[in-house]
Amino acid sequence: MSDLTNPSSTTTLVPYQVLALFAEQVFLAAGSTAAFARITVRNLLLADLRGVDSHGVARLSGYLRLVEAGRIDLTTAGGPIHQTPSTTTWDGQRGMGHVVAQKAMEHAINLADTAGTGWVAVKNSNHYGLAGTYAMMAAKRGMIGISLTNASPLVAPTFGLDRMLGTNPIAVAIPTLTQPTFVLDMATTTAANGKLEVLQRKGLPTPEGWIQDAEGQITTDAGGVQQGGALRPLGGNPAGASHKGYGLGSVVDILSGVLSGAGYGPWVPPFVSFLPLPAMPVGLGLGHFLGAMRVDAFMPQSEFLSRMDHWISSMRGTKAIDGHKVLIPGDQERICHEQRMAEGIPLLPTVLADLRQIGAQFGVSTGF
Amino acid sequence: MSDLTNPSSTTTLVPYQVLALFAEQVFLAAGSTAAFARITVRNLLLADLRGVDSHGVARLSGYLRLVEAGRIDLTTAGGPIHQTPSTTTWDGQRGMGHVVAQKAMEHAINLADTAGTGWVAVKNSNHYGLAGTYAMMAAKRGMIGISLTNASPLVAPTFGLDRMLGTNPIAVAIPTLTQPTFVLDMATTTAANGKLEVLQRKGLPTPEGWIQDAEGQITTDAGGVQQGGALRPLGGNPAGASHKGYGLGSVVDILSGVLSGAGYGPWVPPFVSFLPLPAMPVGLGLGHFLGAMRVDAFMPQSEFLSRMDHWISSMRGTKAIDGHKVLIPGDQERICHEQRMAEGIPLLPTVLADLRQIGAQFGVSTGF
Repeated sequence: MSDLTNPSSTTTLVPYQVLALFAEQVFLAAGSTAAFARITVRNLLLADLRGVDSHGVARLSGYLRLVEAGRIDLTTAGGPIHQTPSTTTWDGQRGMGHVVAQKAMEHAINLADTAGTGWVAVKNSNHYGLAGTYAMMAAKRGMIGISLTNASPLVAPTFGLDRMLGTNPIAVAIPTLTQPTFVLDMATTTAANGKLEVLQRKGLPTPEGWIQDAEGQITTDAGGVQQGGALRPLGGNPAGASHKGYGLGSVVDILSGVLSGAGYGPWVPPFVSFLPLPAMPVGLGLGHFLGAMRVDAFMPQSEFLSRMDHWISSMRGTKAIDGHKVLIPGDQERICHEQRMAEGIPLLPTVLADLRQIGAQFGVSTGF
Repeated sequence: MSDLTNPSSTTTLVPYQVLALFAEQVFLAAGSTAAFARITVRNLLLADLRGVDSHGVARLSGYLRLVEAGRIDLTTAGGPIHQTPSTTTWDGQRGMGHVVAQKAMEHAINLADTAGTGWVAVKNSNHYGLAGTYAMMAAKRGMIGISLTNASPLVAPTFGLDRMLGTNPIAVAIPTLTQPTFVLDMATTTAANGKLEVLQRKGLPTPEGWIQDAEGQITTDAGGVQQGGALRPLGGNPAGASHKGYGLGSVVDILSGVLSGAGYGPWVPPFVSFLPLPAMPVGLGLGHFLGAMRVDAFMPQSEFLSRMDHWISSMRGTKAIDGHKVLIPGDQERICHEQRMAEGIPLLPTVLADLRQIGAQFGVSTGF
């Protein structure tokens, strides 16, 4: 993450508010309602604020091309199609993933209000940005939030050659008393695709175990995935227990895709509009799985929050290897968020040019 | 796993039924009820059948010493102390983990019957054996089962020196139509402690990234943990994304321990009776988190089962690296189960001697 939080001299710092206003106007011009544009942009830019540059405005043109191609409908959040007291299946109706997931997670939270927990399987959705965004919605309400999504195939199963799974992230957000919220937000691969892109841009090799080449051999060439290779599951190689990363990515795919009625495995629709949709689809769009658990469904809220603070301070206070310290999941992203909210969001020249072109296309002034 | 499924020439094959009868009689002699002895032994020996030798009868004497020390009460399964429609907090009342978790998972399944999903946080329990055991209970009922537990501290957080977390496993079992049940059952470390013990016994080094020494440096000495080192979280080292394994182990600890009212982190009671209980406990015993989700709370059961079969056959059918094939989580354990049910369970001389001594102590004939 550190290589993302230090803006290099080639980036331009743009204030969050300026970038958000621009992006909202673009979504309005592209046909979004005011409310949906606001939700989309807040969730989209949260990735930029938290330092996950691959999932923020750098993807804006990609989303807009999917709108043009008719694969994203900016006017709907979808809705429930099947329910029990603690579950709902949600048809996203090809809506923008950020809006669909926001509404589906609000629904999960409402289920939890009455049933103790709420679980929403979403089909027919699109890329929803940063998984943690929706888990954090529950934590803000004092609940434990869980957010899973499948994604277009980039990952080979252990011993496999083909890209059969997405980077399928797991996000869990847990509320606290005075400590910052615990936010685990991780791809089930060794490295997320965005980190690879950073190394590619810099012409640097990857650490071993991130990717394999077209023959399935470990490579440190950051361009290996583009040349017919694949990302490796968390663990990196069989001796490092990559079958565990593959297993976790599989569970995410099954809950998000198989259980919801969405596409799954290699049938998850591609993010890029120039690639065709799967010829023999097994479901509708991509899928998410969202959960909210009321803490006081298990123990008094105040007691849990105190225990979480103690858990966190114990981990922070443990002895560390010289020159290092033990972090809590979410620490780095939170620090980046505070810094970028104060100083602005660093945009690479390519991203800046992309946004200016979008502005020209939609008749919206960038303001930067 | 393969090094466990091939009984070496030094092991003795004991038929499952013979071993189970012996173990049941021991638990009866130690004060268990007939019903609880049956549950305990079935769940305990499932580890031996599935090739996880570290969690089966090799631990029998350890459990019995905890009974003698008054830390395990063989006469209770505990019961619910707090409920909502989809959740329960369960006080294990120091019962045998295998019995407590069995009853708590049955309760989760009952909750799911009415609420769609059921989630049970368990405190005041003991080591429950193989995590997958309880997840598979739900899958046998056509539900998705989830089983998490914390465990006594052996794992250092990324950049940490101290053992702050257990190997905290994640198990997920998913029902299928004609394919074998999908069973992910994994420690959130690179290697489970049992695999280290196997290498130690053979005098072999570990692959890099399994453990660190007392200074926090990677070591391949299988005895490193005993010499003040620690297990490394899944990912192995920071470049391999060990912060993800640390994050997953943390979530398991928080759901199992912090949320239930059990001990957590370094305050989880030790498995061995000769180590004292934590001086300033933060909760009661160790904790589990068990979940059951009705598939038909999301989509028609038959449709889901067909989709799962298709998911599995697609993964099995994908191109593999020369000389290898792509496996489905649970394949190796299931094959081992079938083999050992037919041929017997291989016991090492040390385990055999241990069991004979237990037989003498409790006046039970081993029959082998």
